[in-house]
Amino acid sequence: MKDDTCIFCKIANGEIPSATVYEDEMFRVILDMGPASRGHALILPKNHFSDVCALDEETSSKVLALGAKIGAAMKKSLGCDGFNLVQNNGEAAGQTVFHFHMHVIPRYAGGPDMVSWKPGEASAEELAKTAECIRKELE
Amino acid sequence: MKDDTCIFCKIANGEIPSATVYEDEMFRVILDMGPASRGHALILPKNHFSDVCALDEETSSKVLALGAKIGAAMKKSLGCDGFNLVQNNGEAAGQTVFHFHMHVIPRYAGGPDMVSWKPGEASAEELAKTAECIRKELE
Repeated sequence: MKDDTCIFCKIANGEIPSATVYEDEMFRVILDMGPASRGHALILPKNHFSDVCALDEETSSKVLALGAKIGAAMKKSLGCDGFNLVQNNGEAAGQTVFHFHMHVIPRYAGGPDMVSWKPGEASAEELAKTAECIRKELE
Repeated sequence: MKDDTCIFCKIANGEIPSATVYEDEMFRVILDMGPASRGHALILPKNHFSDVCALDEETSSKVLALGAKIGAAMKKSLGCDGFNLVQNNGEAAGQTVFHFHMHVIPRYAGGPDMVSWKPGEASAEELAKTAECIRKELE
């Protein structure tokens, strides 16, 4: 399904032009217009899903393999040394367009630090308590 | 296959104890010992794969749905407002353990900024050129 008010639906389906890296029946991969690094790409399903929890099974099952394929091509073509896959869900997580998308960010050795966080501290007791709390929800 | 020298193989297969959130035949989900936020989890396949490019199809097809399931459970159990899925490939991308893992990072409204980057600038010409470079590798 497409959402007529969604800009990523329009881009994924070719109604708005983009720097396209890859396209198949289900996905379009484009370059981010405000790249974190050279080659920063976005994997967009052509159907509209607000976030990862909304994906249908077929779409969900294919995203990671596509990310691997794009990342491997980036290493060969751009000479990057690694890549991050990043996918944000919810405004609090930095999601700004509510059409599922996965960032593929090429990383170059010696380049600026990004997609990183300061490791926090948690005691074994705290971790066990938090794990139990999440686990109960999954039972 | 397991790698006897890999710490994440040992954790995923229960040879080293961990704060486990979820387990099935193929995966174990544990809490990160240096959490970026309360509930920060890692999805670990029980088989050894160095990174996303090394995953077999069955494993690859299931990771994202598991991430969605864990993230949804975090929202209900921990009260987080969103979550990031982050997966690093290569030392240059911040990968420190060379056993595929996906971070599930709960995010709380008003909490510290993380998993973010400064958007760069690129002209339409530069984007088109870079896209063509990657696209050629995929053909």
